[in-house]
Amino acid sequence: MLDPDLIARFAAIVGVSNAITDRNEIAPHLVETRGLYHGASPLLLKPASKEEVAAILKLASETGTAIVPQSGNTGHVGGQTPRAGKDDVLLTLSRMNRVREIDTSANLIVVDAGCVLQSVHEIAEQHDRLFPLSLGSQGSCQIGGNLSTNAGGTQVLAYGNMRQLCLGLEVVLPTGEIWDGLRKLKKDNTGYDLRDLFIGAEGTLGVITGAVLKLFPRPRGHQVAFAGLASAEDALVFLGMASDICGTSLTGFELMVRLGVEFTVRHIPGVRDPLSEAYPWHVLIDISTSDSAESAETMLQALLEKALAADIIKDAAVATSSSQARAFWHMRESMSEAQKPEGGSIKHDVSVPISSIPEFMAKAEKAVTAVVAGARICAFGHMGDGNIHYNISQPVGADKQAFIGRWREVNAIVHGLVLEFGGSISAEHGIGQLKRDELAEIRPAIEMDLMARIKRAFDPAGIMNPEKVIRPQ
Amino acid sequence: MLDPDLIARFAAIVGVSNAITDRNEIAPHLVETRGLYHGASPLLLKPASKEEVAAILKLASETGTAIVPQSGNTGHVGGQTPRAGKDDVLLTLSRMNRVREIDTSANLIVVDAGCVLQSVHEIAEQHDRLFPLSLGSQGSCQIGGNLSTNAGGTQVLAYGNMRQLCLGLEVVLPTGEIWDGLRKLKKDNTGYDLRDLFIGAEGTLGVITGAVLKLFPRPRGHQVAFAGLASAEDALVFLGMASDICGTSLTGFELMVRLGVEFTVRHIPGVRDPLSEAYPWHVLIDISTSDSAESAETMLQALLEKALAADIIKDAAVATSSSQARAFWHMRESMSEAQKPEGGSIKHDVSVPISSIPEFMAKAEKAVTAVVAGARICAFGHMGDGNIHYNISQPVGADKQAFIGRWREVNAIVHGLVLEFGGSISAEHGIGQLKRDELAEIRPAIEMDLMARIKRAFDPAGIMNPEKVIRPQ
Repeated sequence: MLDPDLIARFAAIVGVSNAITDRNEIAPHLVETRGLYHGASPLLLKPASKEEVAAILKLASETGTAIVPQSGNTGHVGGQTPRAGKDDVLLTLSRMNRVREIDTSANLIVVDAGCVLQSVHEIAEQHDRLFPLSLGSQGSCQIGGNLSTNAGGTQVLAYGNMRQLCLGLEVVLPTGEIWDGLRKLKKDNTGYDLRDLFIGAEGTLGVITGAVLKLFPRPRGHQVAFAGLASAEDALVFLGMASDICGTSLTGFELMVRLGVEFTVRHIPGVRDPLSEAYPWHVLIDISTSDSAESAETMLQALLEKALAADIIKDAAVATSSSQARAFWHMRESMSEAQKPEGGSIKHDVSVPISSIPEFMAKAEKAVTAVVAGARICAFGHMGDGNIHYNISQPVGADKQAFIGRWREVNAIVHGLVLEFGGSISAEHGIGQLKRDELAEIRPAIEMDLMARIKRAFDPAGIMNPEKVIRPQ
Repeated sequence: MLDPDLIARFAAIVGVSNAITDRNEIAPHLVETRGLYHGASPLLLKPASKEEVAAILKLASETGTAIVPQSGNTGHVGGQTPRAGKDDVLLTLSRMNRVREIDTSANLIVVDAGCVLQSVHEIAEQHDRLFPLSLGSQGSCQIGGNLSTNAGGTQVLAYGNMRQLCLGLEVVLPTGEIWDGLRKLKKDNTGYDLRDLFIGAEGTLGVITGAVLKLFPRPRGHQVAFAGLASAEDALVFLGMASDICGTSLTGFELMVRLGVEFTVRHIPGVRDPLSEAYPWHVLIDISTSDSAESAETMLQALLEKALAADIIKDAAVATSSSQARAFWHMRESMSEAQKPEGGSIKHDVSVPISSIPEFMAKAEKAVTAVVAGARICAFGHMGDGNIHYNISQPVGADKQAFIGRWREVNAIVHGLVLEFGGSISAEHGIGQLKRDELAEIRPAIEMDLMARIKRAFDPAGIMNPEKVIRPQ
């Protein structure tokens, strides 16, 4: 039980109406999207300024109160979920959602960390600019969470992760001090790279309250196509062709197994297979050009002709309108959602060297189905980045809970293979609670020790999102 | 005096022939290129492996012996120079210069940190690939130094700094432990970003011994042009046009004042002004295209036509051969060298928001010449990155030492303006000794404190390149 006096002191900082103790109002913040973690919290604080955040963290450090920052609550690894059976105080910046500045000549935008990603897209568009970070959850996720998890998504191939899209940060430290690192410079070699330390730290080193983000010219040409292929090996050759022909204009290269396409056609209203025949593998290609609309068309045509002539792709549909292009993308983005009606799904967010993807796919399927007969591989992902969401739907008719109960066992098999290929067990979703212990097992002790030293140096009271990413010391 | 027994213990690690105590052999390592710092060292160690580096640092930590890592000794801020009057031991990885692996399908190369940058260029070229980091000192600087200073150079506009060109690192920590972070993945969200903490730390947190670097397809089209302009304002408009027309194919946009061109024509053998008339400002444009040779030509032609028609540029010469393109670049790259025969030069390596460059240039010239009558502004740099080498040659006939003696005073004026514009006092050269105290003055205390905490956490014995970047604690 959090001391009522302490609750009152926190409430005094943000105002009583922004210090939520109502259980029903707090409830949605205690469960994450996949339902893997259920936490508890006596108090949800909604500060309106960095100064209020600073006062909250100062009081928390002085009183040893754990603070869990939560943005759009769309994370997949439980990083944003408070612990069960503790008195973790939730902190949301949803009231800090102002665009502080937009500078189209310098191609940058300065935002509060509570801005919803999609609102940043919209404001950039209104100024004829592109903010490229693109996620399925963009209607609810927030910039602070995107930064804290170094979010990736579908445009990483051309524009990079959130880390590459950020020029400067404003961070409130666990001690309540405010670091103003809101720089707007492309080049700045003045000491240790604090910015990149906070990005991807999942709220364990401080609370990001503001950021300078890069904008890009809106592409003049945009082409999307959906291809059918015989094998993952062919997809790899196709990726090589696409890189050769399109260079930096290749803005998306998404690989999907047939089953994923079938699930979306079956369960997502309005989705239909753009191709007339069924193929074992599919690729969604996205090309954006800065010089002209025609060059994107020329590139796509050249690529498809070459790939068809070489029998690397079997068929392809080109989106002839922007609504059709959105429909192709919608299929890809609904793939995780489309798994739900098929029962339980054991998920992986892995990366391997791109050239190893076909071999990884073959070995993983063999290993998983050897252990879980009838397991249905619904793998898809950002092949151009080496990042595969290796999801496994339960066998038809199996017991969902029994299947989900084998999560760790199946993880161990898939991740074991990932490590054999020199890959990562978390390409874009982060560590949170879900992969914390596994990370400590697979990484050298010195690496975990360096991370623990940084944690202690920045958060001596251990109040920032405790027990996430690294084990408590 | 370093204890002879201790020297013997270090020598036992690397072998007596690789533990240099000969004063003449050590001498070239004690002075940096500009002659601003003269240090001392009783011992230069040349390890052959990361294990030897680890043994050296372990012994150094146990005995409190300061270690100064030095790569090609081409740094501009004294970061690589041992302290005067101390017993700093020099460490060079010049014997660790193997290419460990090159993978053209994955577009990466794994190298020892002692590899000379130019040798990496050459190996990449032999495999029909590009390693884009491009510096005047590339014939002698080494990858370890490039990483430790987050080197920039002339290709940052399209490819980014060394930070963006590195996928993974191998680092020996001050305690002698080895961190194997040699990852080859584009996406990997597994804990704190240790890689980016070591990059740019100027050897104060550990010794980088190996790296995974990105390679790129060699461009199919390459065009270089040299333009004459009436003002820096026009150069800004020209940059906007170039970005619009070329997008990510704009691989260089270098601004130069007339005086720099005159100095190179006067002092660098073989350099001549490509234009028949003199203009107050010049821009070197570099365009590289991945799809075809023709598209670079088309882009350049469209750009020059548009800029001439709008009277934004007054004249332009297009390089008609690769040797002419090299000659244009040679002029730009010799600009610092060409200042030497003109006497003393007070240098700045600053960045400001790109749109502020013209105003910064005008204000800085006014402020500097008001204080040093007759001072000659020889500014040039990477305008596309906002990075200007704001160099000031002494007045004709002035006393060199007296002029150089005003270094701090002139720095204060230029840097004061830079800060007014929200700029950086070290865009690419780093902090080293030269800007350490100034950094501490201009940055908020919390920022310097966070850096000091990281330093203490990584190097508790304080042996790694002491007194560089941050003040000793």
